Amino acid sequence: MRFCNNCGHEVVLAIPPGDNLPRFVCESCGTIHYQNPRVVVGCLAEWQGRILLCRRAIEPRKGFWTLPAGFMENGETTEQAALRETAEEAMAEAEGLEPLALVNVPHVSQVHLMFRGRLRDGRHAPGAESLETALLDEQDIPWSDIAFPSVRFALKRFLEDRRKGAFGFHISTWDKPLKH
Amino acid sequence: MRFCNNCGHEVVLAIPPGDNLPRFVCESCGTIHYQNPRVVVGCLAEWQGRILLCRRAIEPRKGFWTLPAGFMENGETTEQAALRETAEEAMAEAEGLEPLALVNVPHVSQVHLMFRGRLRDGRHAPGAESLETALLDEQDIPWSDIAFPSVRFALKRFLEDRRKGAFGFHISTWDKPLKH
Repeated sequence: MRFCNNCGHEVVLAIPPGDNLPRFVCESCGTIHYQNPRVVVGCLAEWQGRILLCRRAIEPRKGFWTLPAGFMENGETTEQAALRETAEEAMAEAEGLEPLALVNVPHVSQVHLMFRGRLRDGRHAPGAESLETALLDEQDIPWSDIAFPSVRFALKRFLEDRRKGAFGFHISTWDKPLKH
Repeated sequence: MRFCNNCGHEVVLAIPPGDNLPRFVCESCGTIHYQNPRVVVGCLAEWQGRILLCRRAIEPRKGFWTLPAGFMENGETTEQAALRETAEEAMAEAEGLEPLALVNVPHVSQVHLMFRGRLRDGRHAPGAESLETALLDEQDIPWSDIAFPSVRFALKRFLEDRRKGAFGFHISTWDKPLKH
């Protein structure tokens, strides 16, 4: 950040009065530009015991498999974000959402929140950001080709809980940059 | 937002190629300025069965009671944010955090995430943003003077779960602007 988006003046990095962290501050109009983590919301949707996965058509991790997920938008709820991403990336309708997992990703200032649910009618097809979509049995999940640790964490905890017949909410931190 | 914070040029509101929502776009340097919800993280900390609450010294809801909570910062985890807010607002050390509640607040593009935990040594004192802090038994909680619906939701679910002896993770949406 170099310029104030309120008045166009150059910003400086300074600790505002009463604060304890440096912020981009505009000395012309006084605006303090806070920067905060972003929320990525995803959905693990089941249909007749199989799980909906998407193969990514875009970077990062193009060609790898993921749950439908993406950045939460202003004005929506986390559940609405999960349903929207499922519609956009897998052209599928999910329902019955329950919270499944939260993964902190501090090295990129993100929080990944995953829901579990079911497909309304089993239909799915690749959206613009997916090369293909598939409903996969547990034994067919391509573990070595999963796009992100947070997706792997959500899948593993879901499968464990399903075997136990008792679902929980799971939290973890992906604290190392991905090497690939 | 009126100016590009990368180059200082005026921005326009336009739907970028491949997108479906209007964004502030800089036609000079090409930067797309995404705006996303912010995460507020809080902590319900117990000490010998009593719950730590803070009376707010700042607006909004100055003079009302809250759990220690505030905006998550870049580079930290949700648990670190909960511990930091507990230290800043109640000068207290919490530990043993477990996720308690998530409240969507779409009308202000926020997600409130509350943890439960316990105080390390029972010590607390008002930080700069608190008028006073207190450890309160359930029957002394000032329900009519709670600052925010998300704080009330977290407190209610926690007390119910504690009576049952089984804690869960609870999700809700605060979907109407607060009238006060």
